[in-house]
Amino acid sequence: MKGLTGDAWPDSLLELRDKVRRFAADRDWDQFHSPKNLSMALSVEAGELLEHFQWVSDDASAELPPEALVKVREELADVLLYLIRIADKLDVDLVDAAQSKIVVNAEKYPIEKSRGTSKKSTDL
Amino acid sequence: MKGLTGDAWPDSLLELRDKVRRFAADRDWDQFHSPKNLSMALSVEAGELLEHFQWVSDDASAELPPEALVKVREELADVLLYLIRIADKLDVDLVDAAQSKIVVNAEKYPIEKSRGTSKKSTDL
Amino acid sequence: MKGLTGDAWPDSLLELRDKVRRFAADRDWDQFHSPKNLSMALSVEAGELLEHFQWVSDDASAELPPEALVKVREELADVLLYLIRIADKLDVDLVDAAQSKIVVNAEKYPIEKSRGTSKKSTDL
Amino acid sequence: MKGLTGDAWPDSLLELRDKVRRFAADRDWDQFHSPKNLSMALSVEAGELLEHFQWVSDDASAELPPEALVKVREELADVLLYLIRIADKLDVDLVDAAQSKIVVNAEKYPIEKSRGTSKKSTDL
Repeated sequence: MKGLTGDAWPDSLLELRDKVRRFAADRDWDQFHSPKNLSMALSVEAGELLEHFQWVSDDASAELPPEALVKVREELADVLLYLIRIADKLDVDLVDAAQSKIVVNAEKYPIEKSRGTSKKSTDL
Repeated sequence: MKGLTGDAWPDSLLELRDKVRRFAADRDWDQFHSPKNLSMALSVEAGELLEHFQWVSDDASAELPPEALVKVREELADVLLYLIRIADKLDVDLVDAAQSKIVVNAEKYPIEKSRGTSKKSTDL
Repeated sequence: MKGLTGDAWPDSLLELRDKVRRFAADRDWDQFHSPKNLSMALSVEAGELLEHFQWVSDDASAELPPEALVKVREELADVLLYLIRIADKLDVDLVDAAQSKIVVNAEKYPIEKSRGTSKKSTDL
Repeated sequence: MKGLTGDAWPDSLLELRDKVRRFAADRDWDQFHSPKNLSMALSVEAGELLEHFQWVSDDASAELPPEALVKVREELADVLLYLIRIADKLDVDLVDAAQSKIVVNAEKYPIEKSRGTSKKSTDL
């Protein structure tokens, strides 16, 4: 399907994609890596990221102590790795998809209407 | 902090980061974009991704009908955009973090012990 | 607000609500227990529940080994405890809310249209 | 398994459990309701709950406007309904599980050590 698959992955994401492919192949893990299971794994990692912020104030969340930042960085990495893996399995070009989504979001949230408000687009 | 910040973002992610920065600045949304709130937004998007797979079999999840794939692609994009945004706010180099995490994972899951099993590293 | 607050909590949930209140009060944790933070904590626990099922087949998920079931039971308990805590903070009667929601769901998913299909109500 | 199944569900939760059972049976939905799929559905609902709080301050989250509270109440109901459904499928007594978990939590978080701090038990 045109526009869904792409050959435009940047080299660094391609490299990560290939490393994750090899990681799974070496361990015979493709049998577990259905998009369904991977979407669960991504949600689990998103929950682990959330855990670091659940009792922290907004302000404090922007100034994490170094030990917390090290762990948060690992959770961000886990999310990215599963995201790359699902995209690979579904043949989605992540960067292309994100570029398109920014255009969609700009239409949903016109600057003049959405300035300074956190309302949903449907409530603007 | 050395190793946490990086100048190694690939061009395509840098471009997305800059577009998301501008998107937020145009709408005066930085006031809402604490890492805490962004981690919530990422989890919300991960939940929306999950929703597409909740009643679908493993096999069917790998062969989504085109309309479903279009929506899943948008959710993947949303996750990536929030991931880039949090990483930007916390000055984390996503690609570098993911590279490091693959090394950590390879140690946690030695090939010979983890082949063909989905056990957690602590149960291997 | 009529219909939102209720005095209809069953005794067993009331007892749990009171135990959780005392647990928080004893530790001076009310300062952390905003509905916002509690919604994050509930999502974190939902993610931990999910983790137990991420690589398990549908069929296997219904026949967990005893050690897994013990852990899943704890995650279900955590979700219930945070759910009770948020409802308490927002003065929502959980059972009453669930009774109402079943009525709403029955309208959204008429039996004849939704039998045997997992389609969303908007796609029926 | 002793202690996991129970006959101690309070009448109001029993009534909800039975209504949810009938709701699913009427629609021939038991085929979709594996514990795995239900854990995904619960996580999706937890994400929808989270969505209401993602851009709201801690203080504002405790004083939701009436329209928002109506929606949050529905999300809390959805979480409870899926929680009851998973517990039913896994033969877990929710109230009994929550009672036990409070005891476990009290041991993990001794009053004197955890007063006024949101540290994890492993960091106390």
